[in-house]
Amino acid sequence: MSQAHEYAQQHHDRFVEQLQELVRIPSVSTLSQNKPDMAQAANWLAEDMKNIGFDRAEVMPTNGHPVVYGEWKGAGEEAPTVLVYGHYDVQPAEMADGWSHEPFDPHIEDGFLYGRGAMDNKGQLIAQLKAIESLIKTGGSPVNLKVIFEGEEETSSINLPVFVQEHIDMLSADVCVISDTGMREVDQPQMCYSLRGLTYMELHVTGPSHDLHSGSGHTIHNPAQALAEIIAKLHDEDGRITVPGFYDDVAELDAKERALMNEDAPTEEYVIKTTGSPTTWGEPNFTPAERMGARPTLEVNGMVSGFYGEGSKTVIPAKAMAKLSARLVANQKAQRAFEQIRDYIAEITPPSVRSELKLLSKGEPAYTAPDTPSMQAAVRAYEQGWGKAPTFNRGGGSIPIVADFQQMLNVPVVLLGFGVGDGVHGPNERFLLEAFKRGVDTAIYFYEEVGKGL
Amino acid sequence: MSQAHEYAQQHHDRFVEQLQELVRIPSVSTLSQNKPDMAQAANWLAEDMKNIGFDRAEVMPTNGHPVVYGEWKGAGEEAPTVLVYGHYDVQPAEMADGWSHEPFDPHIEDGFLYGRGAMDNKGQLIAQLKAIESLIKTGGSPVNLKVIFEGEEETSSINLPVFVQEHIDMLSADVCVISDTGMREVDQPQMCYSLRGLTYMELHVTGPSHDLHSGSGHTIHNPAQALAEIIAKLHDEDGRITVPGFYDDVAELDAKERALMNEDAPTEEYVIKTTGSPTTWGEPNFTPAERMGARPTLEVNGMVSGFYGEGSKTVIPAKAMAKLSARLVANQKAQRAFEQIRDYIAEITPPSVRSELKLLSKGEPAYTAPDTPSMQAAVRAYEQGWGKAPTFNRGGGSIPIVADFQQMLNVPVVLLGFGVGDGVHGPNERFLLEAFKRGVDTAIYFYEEVGKGL
Repeated sequence: MSQAHEYAQQHHDRFVEQLQELVRIPSVSTLSQNKPDMAQAANWLAEDMKNIGFDRAEVMPTNGHPVVYGEWKGAGEEAPTVLVYGHYDVQPAEMADGWSHEPFDPHIEDGFLYGRGAMDNKGQLIAQLKAIESLIKTGGSPVNLKVIFEGEEETSSINLPVFVQEHIDMLSADVCVISDTGMREVDQPQMCYSLRGLTYMELHVTGPSHDLHSGSGHTIHNPAQALAEIIAKLHDEDGRITVPGFYDDVAELDAKERALMNEDAPTEEYVIKTTGSPTTWGEPNFTPAERMGARPTLEVNGMVSGFYGEGSKTVIPAKAMAKLSARLVANQKAQRAFEQIRDYIAEITPPSVRSELKLLSKGEPAYTAPDTPSMQAAVRAYEQGWGKAPTFNRGGGSIPIVADFQQMLNVPVVLLGFGVGDGVHGPNERFLLEAFKRGVDTAIYFYEEVGKGL
Repeated sequence: MSQAHEYAQQHHDRFVEQLQELVRIPSVSTLSQNKPDMAQAANWLAEDMKNIGFDRAEVMPTNGHPVVYGEWKGAGEEAPTVLVYGHYDVQPAEMADGWSHEPFDPHIEDGFLYGRGAMDNKGQLIAQLKAIESLIKTGGSPVNLKVIFEGEEETSSINLPVFVQEHIDMLSADVCVISDTGMREVDQPQMCYSLRGLTYMELHVTGPSHDLHSGSGHTIHNPAQALAEIIAKLHDEDGRITVPGFYDDVAELDAKERALMNEDAPTEEYVIKTTGSPTTWGEPNFTPAERMGARPTLEVNGMVSGFYGEGSKTVIPAKAMAKLSARLVANQKAQRAFEQIRDYIAEITPPSVRSELKLLSKGEPAYTAPDTPSMQAAVRAYEQGWGKAPTFNRGGGSIPIVADFQQMLNVPVVLLGFGVGDGVHGPNERFLLEAFKRGVDTAIYFYEEVGKGL
């Protein structure tokens, strides 16, 4: 065991306390009311980088929430450079969503840390930062380090691509590592080699110029009903998306990859057990893993219209709105997917109402081959730090910046995920502290493996 | 002009001030937070009845909001007795709904009084009360008067039928009059002789036990999407309700009644102009007046699911809810209509989600023939008080207690409506003060006409 691993072991409790400190800051990027909290979280991270001994640590402005950037170049010019990415913003969370405890007052129970961001991404980001601390505080890291933590991942990293474009030299590296993925069980690490893109939209349907008394119903088209009718036409009975051309660019799965991604994949029974849904649902010719990793989706994330409070109000709402998003896979393009959906909705909107589809954000799908040298360094890091070699899987989620890093910085992106827990984006988010601990160790091993050369 | 009419003219400004006073009390019956305001409004009315000189004036409890009851028996045992009904509760109203001014801070502009309840029903109720005041204060009324003002009309008068049943003797009368209907233009009064019933429901759709990250989409059925799919199946392409058997009990319109109700009815153009909808909508073989007055409806009053705030949240909601209500016509029964809708929704709910339809409230449709003597007394009252004989129409709305009064008290119910304005149940509700003035006069004439014998 190297000195860095000993250091990590000795300081584990303080690492967890620091993670709790960061979770307590409600850095919800999508709500303007939380802007001061976003700044506070960014400052907290820059301050910690300075305490760790980074050569450079600063909060850098963007057109949205700031980026926290840090550098340590003590490994020398001959050593490889690793770019570490994480995000300090989180999804909204309120008790009313079904939390058992205050989402921004973290607590530990049964070995889990509960709180919004405990896993996504504050827990994994702190694991990375504390791995770096363990190396720097015990003689230094075998690789040069560049760390970029952004504050807009949960709003699709709207400003980060511009920031990266403007700082290509500053961010240049040999490999990029991101810890923002996970595994089902702590005993079997999984490496995600594919992520989905995302197109996030708002669908507005309007009819009358003002809310009407429902006594005048059936003389005009109810916009809430019309919205429901439009949404109902987005999928066929089998769960296939009906938008014309939507599957045209979807890469076909070959037999070899189907075998690889289904080897250690959630079964239909596992999906029912973990979600609580009465049955599974979706395209019948694909397994759940394939539907999540290799097929696009189109989902309703939210919906609102008219009166939905306590009691009754006999109103015909003037308008109705739904939040829609599509997860995209290689080789779909986010803008094209949006346009296909927009055109189809325009086509199926009846003349009795008006509809408008607004694009809120988008991100491209990404893919890194499992035999890439830095991916293999990660495999060895898991073997030593986690105790077992990872299996490979395609992720259902999106980290839009992965595709951007690959293209703009021309580096392989390794998803070194430590996530064990649940509740990400929902209530009662939690992160297994044993996974946090193994994550710190695995990250240290990853830097050591990359230090041996790629 | 009788002394009563002179009195009404002299005191008009004070009558309007009193109406504003009552509008200022936010007596929203459906929200528990407004319970103290409900009590305040009831007390205000009982106090005014005492000042007017009623023999009896009291706030009487029910299982919900109280009833205000008043009596004046000065016309003697030989004179007819009129039961006057109104409601002091109002629909919810918030600036966010699109009001230009605070809904509970009434103001006068261009001859209209603006405010929640200005027309429905505080304006018309005060017109009745001030007609009675004008008679009592100038020598007395030619008819005995019983006045009942309830506080739960906007929540479907849940407790009033029990109250009426328990006070049959107290409420016995020769005719019941209700001022809670309206007309399109002040120059042409309209008498409503038919009202629709109502079945108000909540449809809950649930899927996963908790909100999910949308990265796992298309493995389970999204409850918001499933709710939309169920709602979309409630009507066919022509706007006809698809619930099996729903039209079985609907009374057919004969040619004579179709002619009567379409004589002075809103055209398709009028509907488009007043609602702002791009087109009309509904069963193609019926005019707007027929669709509103003689055909049932099934409407979405509100809908909510998942995330609908600012920005984006990539969540699959665990549940979705819609408020649904059906307007019913003779000879439909509210309970049977609910059961038909409930059974159909159970049938079309896919096994991939769970659904539940809850009945919140119900009321039966009602009908009074235009040639009833008390209806003809009303025609003469309009001729004198309003300046023109009314046309007859069927109402699209519901006053559930009308059917209850007819059945339990065995009296004809005359809908002596004074409503000229708009925004009822929506934003910027307003009542033309000229209609308020004519309403007071017309009500006085009605009592005088009834006093001559039915």
